[in-house]
Amino acid sequence: MRIALDAMGSDRAPAVEVEGAVGALLDRDDDVRVVLVGDTGRIQAELARFPDAPRDRLEIHHASEVIEMGEAPATAIRRKRDSSIVVGVNLLKAGEVDAFISAGSTGAVMGASLITLRTIPGVDRPPVGARIPTVAGRCLALDVGANVDCKPHQLVQFAQLGSVYAEDMLGIENPRVGLLNIGTEPEKGNEVVLEAYGLLQKTQHLNFIGNVEGREIVAGKCDVLVADGFVGNVLLKFYESVAGLITGMLRRELNEAGVQLDLDRIFRSLDYAGIGGAPLLGVNGVVIICHGGSPPLAIRNAIGVAAQSVQRRMVEHMTARLARPAEGSTQP
Amino acid sequence: MRIALDAMGSDRAPAVEVEGAVGALLDRDDDVRVVLVGDTGRIQAELARFPDAPRDRLEIHHASEVIEMGEAPATAIRRKRDSSIVVGVNLLKAGEVDAFISAGSTGAVMGASLITLRTIPGVDRPPVGARIPTVAGRCLALDVGANVDCKPHQLVQFAQLGSVYAEDMLGIENPRVGLLNIGTEPEKGNEVVLEAYGLLQKTQHLNFIGNVEGREIVAGKCDVLVADGFVGNVLLKFYESVAGLITGMLRRELNEAGVQLDLDRIFRSLDYAGIGGAPLLGVNGVVIICHGGSPPLAIRNAIGVAAQSVQRRMVEHMTARLARPAEGSTQP
Repeated sequence: MRIALDAMGSDRAPAVEVEGAVGALLDRDDDVRVVLVGDTGRIQAELARFPDAPRDRLEIHHASEVIEMGEAPATAIRRKRDSSIVVGVNLLKAGEVDAFISAGSTGAVMGASLITLRTIPGVDRPPVGARIPTVAGRCLALDVGANVDCKPHQLVQFAQLGSVYAEDMLGIENPRVGLLNIGTEPEKGNEVVLEAYGLLQKTQHLNFIGNVEGREIVAGKCDVLVADGFVGNVLLKFYESVAGLITGMLRRELNEAGVQLDLDRIFRSLDYAGIGGAPLLGVNGVVIICHGGSPPLAIRNAIGVAAQSVQRRMVEHMTARLARPAEGSTQP
Repeated sequence: MRIALDAMGSDRAPAVEVEGAVGALLDRDDDVRVVLVGDTGRIQAELARFPDAPRDRLEIHHASEVIEMGEAPATAIRRKRDSSIVVGVNLLKAGEVDAFISAGSTGAVMGASLITLRTIPGVDRPPVGARIPTVAGRCLALDVGANVDCKPHQLVQFAQLGSVYAEDMLGIENPRVGLLNIGTEPEKGNEVVLEAYGLLQKTQHLNFIGNVEGREIVAGKCDVLVADGFVGNVLLKFYESVAGLITGMLRRELNEAGVQLDLDRIFRSLDYAGIGGAPLLGVNGVVIICHGGSPPLAIRNAIGVAAQSVQRRMVEHMTARLARPAEGSTQP
């Protein structure tokens, strides 16, 4: 298996990407190979820092351009045909690699994936999923940022994609799917979720458990949390910052009290870096998006997630699931 | 000044309400009087537990009915004319009291307030505000649950109401108003916030600082955070639960490590109960909504917030502010 990794994406590229890739490969002795996509000279310079790097499982695929965070995605992917993102997605489309990972511009990764890989039949718009920590483990929330102003039937598609992800990637049988809402009663919510509720109830092969309130997420009420990209994105970013606020407050207090406590260990389960990127679901290929501020550990974990997605044949399963039209869907 | 308190609203009514009222009055030696609205016999029985209660500043106004949490608000306020909520709002409408506080059904309090008090001119729908903790102090988020599917011009009204609240109640001059969004750039967001952004920019007497992302809220980027009631409600409930999750994790660890640390003190600033209820803004009168699970401290603080709202003439200020039509408003 070959996984393409955009080496130029993160805020500290290519150092973080190279370190993450080397770490991932040293971790595993299977057939996974990583293809670093980006400026050959800079990647080689970074690789030189790791004399023990398994070079037989590391390749470099040159790409001369980089799409910057501030660039308008649509324009950037059209103009920078030799950017690490466009080249990486093209490698995936051509079947030369089995997955693509990038910590670069989310918009550009999504745009290139959508244009080049296209969505699987039955998916209008590909959602981004995020595994958020709960008391019970993990819950896949989707969409967390790609699609604002979703239609009810698109939320049903998110539910189906998320359900397959939870089965294949989180190992959950018959995953509980919840609809993010302001109350648990079916008559609660805005127009879109009200209609989505009805559609989800009628969707076959889906364990829809009803509405889930904001306070029930971390309690682990569901395995898959469906929301439009606006709410999902606000929520995810808020989560990260609240965890940061609280641990910051605590760190100060512990220092003042002279108490030794390994906060990093305690809160490891809340650590975004430990989670390994956010999958872009519903496109014809395994694509993982990482934070621009990702540390090497996040890249390493994202490689693990990508490899597992390929091994479990996640995209195939999603294609099969979506091929059964959702009853009540307003799609032709 | 007389403040009506629904004595039958909370999950542990009337015990919590009576204890909160007594505490609030013992705290202050001004002219504030509390009118406990509800079952006279049960209220008197609770009052008997407090021999030091300042009875000269405590009144009871009998109401024979109670609106339960599960009841449909519209039906309940029509049928239960002698419920503590309907009676309390009527006292406010009649000018017999200066404010009304309830920990009962939010929908019923809002419905009764809307029908009986009506909104101030220029306000379509009254938002509920919540003061959420940030590293810098407090930020008023609104709407947190009353109004889903908001129109852009309604978000502008929320911004204006929130701005007056921040001035009068948080003591912030020229408060910074932010629009909750998925990115900071003006071209980000769903249709409603995109249009609201333009309207907010053109609104006079408003310090609009632009979009605020989920991660920037707790950093204290703005004093007033504008969102529709769907997103605001999800966010607020999520906040409460995340804080609970993290402190719970920590408590276990501290116990295991045998470390003594007063977590309640450290996280007091995150404590919802310490904040004192959520104001219903934009109606002709001071109305404060408390959690059903409020402890006596929350009721006590809500009485303080209600008294301050009256003293600062908040409703008058809001009426004056809204009387200037927002430029670009789609309202007639």
